[in-house]
Amino acid sequence: MTKLSAGQWLAAVTVLAICIGTVPIQANEGLERLMEDPRYWVFPGGNYQNWRYSELKQINNRNARKLQAAWTFSTGVLRGHEGGPLVLPASETGLPHDTLYIHAAFPNNVFAINLDNLEIVWEYAPIQDYDETVPVMCCDTVNRGLGYGEGKIILQQADTTLVALSAKDGAVVWSVKNGDSKLGQTNTNAPHVMKDKVITGMSGAEFGVRCWINAYNLSDGELVWRAYSTGPDSEMLFDPEHTTELGQPVGKDSSLKSWKGDQWKIGGGSVWGWFPYDKERNALYYGTGNPSTWNPVVRPGDNKWSMSIISRDVDTGMAHWVYQMTPHDEWDYDGVNEMILVDMKIKGEDTKALVHFDRNGFGYTLDRTNGALLVAEKFDPAVNWATHVDMKTGRPQVVAKYSPGHQGEDVNTTNICPAALGTKDQQPAAYSPRTGLFYVPTNHVCMNYEPVSGGEYVAGQPYVNAVLSMFPAGRVSPGPEYGNSENNNNLGNFIAWDASKGKIVWSIPERFSVWSGALATAGDVVFYGTLGGYLKVIDAKSGKLLWKFKNPSGIIGNVNTWESGGRQYVGVLSGVGGWAGIGMAAGLINDTDGLGAVGAYKGLSSYTRLGGVLSVFSLPTH
Amino acid sequence: MTKLSAGQWLAAVTVLAICIGTVPIQANEGLERLMEDPRYWVFPGGNYQNWRYSELKQINNRNARKLQAAWTFSTGVLRGHEGGPLVLPASETGLPHDTLYIHAAFPNNVFAINLDNLEIVWEYAPIQDYDETVPVMCCDTVNRGLGYGEGKIILQQADTTLVALSAKDGAVVWSVKNGDSKLGQTNTNAPHVMKDKVITGMSGAEFGVRCWINAYNLSDGELVWRAYSTGPDSEMLFDPEHTTELGQPVGKDSSLKSWKGDQWKIGGGSVWGWFPYDKERNALYYGTGNPSTWNPVVRPGDNKWSMSIISRDVDTGMAHWVYQMTPHDEWDYDGVNEMILVDMKIKGEDTKALVHFDRNGFGYTLDRTNGALLVAEKFDPAVNWATHVDMKTGRPQVVAKYSPGHQGEDVNTTNICPAALGTKDQQPAAYSPRTGLFYVPTNHVCMNYEPVSGGEYVAGQPYVNAVLSMFPAGRVSPGPEYGNSENNNNLGNFIAWDASKGKIVWSIPERFSVWSGALATAGDVVFYGTLGGYLKVIDAKSGKLLWKFKNPSGIIGNVNTWESGGRQYVGVLSGVGGWAGIGMAAGLINDTDGLGAVGAYKGLSSYTRLGGVLSVFSLPTH
Repeated sequence: MTKLSAGQWLAAVTVLAICIGTVPIQANEGLERLMEDPRYWVFPGGNYQNWRYSELKQINNRNARKLQAAWTFSTGVLRGHEGGPLVLPASETGLPHDTLYIHAAFPNNVFAINLDNLEIVWEYAPIQDYDETVPVMCCDTVNRGLGYGEGKIILQQADTTLVALSAKDGAVVWSVKNGDSKLGQTNTNAPHVMKDKVITGMSGAEFGVRCWINAYNLSDGELVWRAYSTGPDSEMLFDPEHTTELGQPVGKDSSLKSWKGDQWKIGGGSVWGWFPYDKERNALYYGTGNPSTWNPVVRPGDNKWSMSIISRDVDTGMAHWVYQMTPHDEWDYDGVNEMILVDMKIKGEDTKALVHFDRNGFGYTLDRTNGALLVAEKFDPAVNWATHVDMKTGRPQVVAKYSPGHQGEDVNTTNICPAALGTKDQQPAAYSPRTGLFYVPTNHVCMNYEPVSGGEYVAGQPYVNAVLSMFPAGRVSPGPEYGNSENNNNLGNFIAWDASKGKIVWSIPERFSVWSGALATAGDVVFYGTLGGYLKVIDAKSGKLLWKFKNPSGIIGNVNTWESGGRQYVGVLSGVGGWAGIGMAAGLINDTDGLGAVGAYKGLSSYTRLGGVLSVFSLPTH
Repeated sequence: MTKLSAGQWLAAVTVLAICIGTVPIQANEGLERLMEDPRYWVFPGGNYQNWRYSELKQINNRNARKLQAAWTFSTGVLRGHEGGPLVLPASETGLPHDTLYIHAAFPNNVFAINLDNLEIVWEYAPIQDYDETVPVMCCDTVNRGLGYGEGKIILQQADTTLVALSAKDGAVVWSVKNGDSKLGQTNTNAPHVMKDKVITGMSGAEFGVRCWINAYNLSDGELVWRAYSTGPDSEMLFDPEHTTELGQPVGKDSSLKSWKGDQWKIGGGSVWGWFPYDKERNALYYGTGNPSTWNPVVRPGDNKWSMSIISRDVDTGMAHWVYQMTPHDEWDYDGVNEMILVDMKIKGEDTKALVHFDRNGFGYTLDRTNGALLVAEKFDPAVNWATHVDMKTGRPQVVAKYSPGHQGEDVNTTNICPAALGTKDQQPAAYSPRTGLFYVPTNHVCMNYEPVSGGEYVAGQPYVNAVLSMFPAGRVSPGPEYGNSENNNNLGNFIAWDASKGKIVWSIPERFSVWSGALATAGDVVFYGTLGGYLKVIDAKSGKLLWKFKNPSGIIGNVNTWESGGRQYVGVLSGVGGWAGIGMAAGLINDTDGLGAVGAYKGLSSYTRLGGVLSVFSLPTH
């Protein structure tokens, strides 16, 4: 095995890494200053660490009961509205007022709203081909929001067009295509601006797409680097010697060796989610999705680097380290959920940690500097597919009776917890430095899973080959210790998590999955939305419900906060949908034999209907 | 001319009046009691008199500034949402809670909502053929709401299906078709329950339909009588001797004689709106629409009884009296706007009055017992098409320069006020017995109008033959005396009107037409919504703005109020559309050469987008 130096590897990848060094690397200090100013919300996760935390405390645990709707805005689009608003000051936009930017589900309209008078300053209404794009969107027509940098609002359209819009007037500054929806490639993630780059992923694992992550120049949209989730080291931007797994070099062809034949070419590993940036290390962190077909029998091996956390250099894309949470996935436990960066004490030691709540039901705490595994504990006691994670090998210890691969093709493996949509999915958690706790919206859902034989890969066609049904975890694991103290039908919990110990501090049962992103604030309150439509405020310490409000539609958006004119506002999109709400979003709610999530969430029809409304709340002025 | 007695006439019309006398006439006293109970809202106009007034006063002019959103509900349907909710007690429905019923724009879904927990008790989701029905809806896909009687929620679907649903479980009790959308027939009105009957109209004047009004048995949906707006006396249910116009018998063939040849067969006269019921006289009152084609040159004559107010016996349909406001219409000044029944002093005399704000810009007060014309004054000083109404003949005195018929075919007659959508359209006014004032949402829009030659009638095809453009009245008649004191661009005013004198008491300029229905209450506050999305509360006496809230979308719904659990609530649908919002609703907002209203309301795009949300408000509990 020929060993290459880091420098040689860098040279080897410059074919893909088109522009390295051609543009002066900028720190984008303006963006960092804006993130530190709690009056604005400029990065999807609030700050580069993905805390979804605000220092604003006008709204707090003593007055939150007085909250009221301040204003509302319908996007004019129905179906699932994920993501949340951005808020920018006049100094960034050239507009004479604070401006709020909000996006819609497909076809991904973007609105700039004048926060002085609530008028629409501009709208960007992309023309996208519904028939070409929507059928390759696996899990509703969601879009997870906007990025911002240097006067540009960045939108990743579903049809793989990445577009930069003038924050002032909505004019298209640049536009690039980063995929081809005819091949099953599509996007849902919010673009993330880091320094002078725009980071965006590529999805399509359910269509046999070999997925990747991109970095584009913020200034002109030129592709800087692209790193695939599977394949040769040069295309993954892996350095066999310097890219490590649990402290050891991954070695040559670490991905290729983990697949049968050429299967890595249709190997999935979707990239979407909420990516943090570690300025000190110039690193971004993200997770990869499932290794394409949901029938594990036909794809032996660990299927690297699907289902993995990866740390990369923002400027070159080169991977620092990787950790695969679910080798050889048999359950669709994508690793795409957000990473949260917190410096904390673990077993008495100051640790630069990365915290991640995985679809597979384990809450992971890693050393983000080297990928060392520190904590891996179940964040829902109902999780049963693995007994635990071996802390030396990092491998989950799979229970054979819950292993569809072990049970075999065309066999229905029953009562697996969690279901394919995971103990948590896209709904991002929040972290409060005041309590040291993570506030995690979760699913409490189990499944039966039958891998289906046959069904070859055809480009642009679904490549799933499994039949699923989902149901409340209480049917499998009844009792309060499994987080379903209220009844056996709850499909979600909202939990507080101690990431240093891997322990649930408190847990609030919810009738449905909590599919909304959380917000924590210096007012010691935590916000989240429910699929039934309630925005709730919780005391950050006790978990006590302080206030709730019934929004127009079910909430799968993220709660953001800002200040304008001296008042603190909290905003959230309602618009039921997403994977949990796909039955309602796609009009299948009465179709119990439909997609896996349809049956479990049928009860949603008693609570809400489709919508697409931004609701904004504040304390009364009188 | 053979004279028939009333008895003979009655015999002559029994072919159409199928069931007269076969069902015992019921007073539906339960419904009357419910109307008198301010905790509920059971009739579209609040009470049989169409007052849109409530005795509730928990919300009043001293505390209205503290109003806040209590809950919201998206219907899952976009485009124009007119009408408002009904609220019923447990005693009526058999459900163990107060229940709110709300409808959506096409396809006219109906929802029953449990007011204790805001859950959806049932939904009725009709299957309607979009391609057959929506193209024959002249002015957006609106529906104006539900009727109620004897445990049944009544829905008039756009596709001409009238359906009675069990208030308890939404089961279809009966369903009838009252027209054929393939012929251009369609419905938008709320069904009105009067005694044991359901009253509903038929529209389609823009498609050459000869329109009518129906009465169905509330119990089983059987047709009781049908009365056409034009044609032979027997089909209009006119008695030449006993049906009067300004105190005189109309005489034989009063409609036929007013048309050239057979044109009455395609004579329009759409019936929709808000119909009041006069229990003492067993009379209902309604207006008829335009005489089909908008090219007046091709249809000489008065075109009776288009553009008329008609009083009919609820049990037999026989007409008591008729008054034509706009003979030989040249402007599309439909007479369909609501009638409001108030006993008031006029010139010192106790009068059983009927008050009506017509599209033609005149506010009429009639003696509802005999159709005598008492007051006819402009309720917008900008009105210029007629100088005044001759109080002896009842005829408007038309100004030749604003008469398209006088100017001729293919000539653009300019600066006519009001525009075709009238000084008021469907947006119903409210009346407060405490102030004695009428609160009227109005349009302040003028037009250029060009009748187009050619264009023969084809069944089911548009039969309009005119080209219009609309613009703010301030461009024609600037100055504060024309109601546009703020600027010359306002397209609406919200006015208080003294119907005994025919005088504007105060007027609030609005940027756009006020297309929402008003509500007055014993708290001496008046509510209305704006096309831009604000719900506003006004002091009933001074007209001072007390509070406003930005709803998800523009408001064209009616504001209703009710009490549940000891709290007063106010609810309104937002969902921009209707004629004024057709540009936005139909996606033509940037098409300045589109339909007549599109250009004038182009500015709406700075304020709102499509939606369909019921927003409910109350005072804070804390």
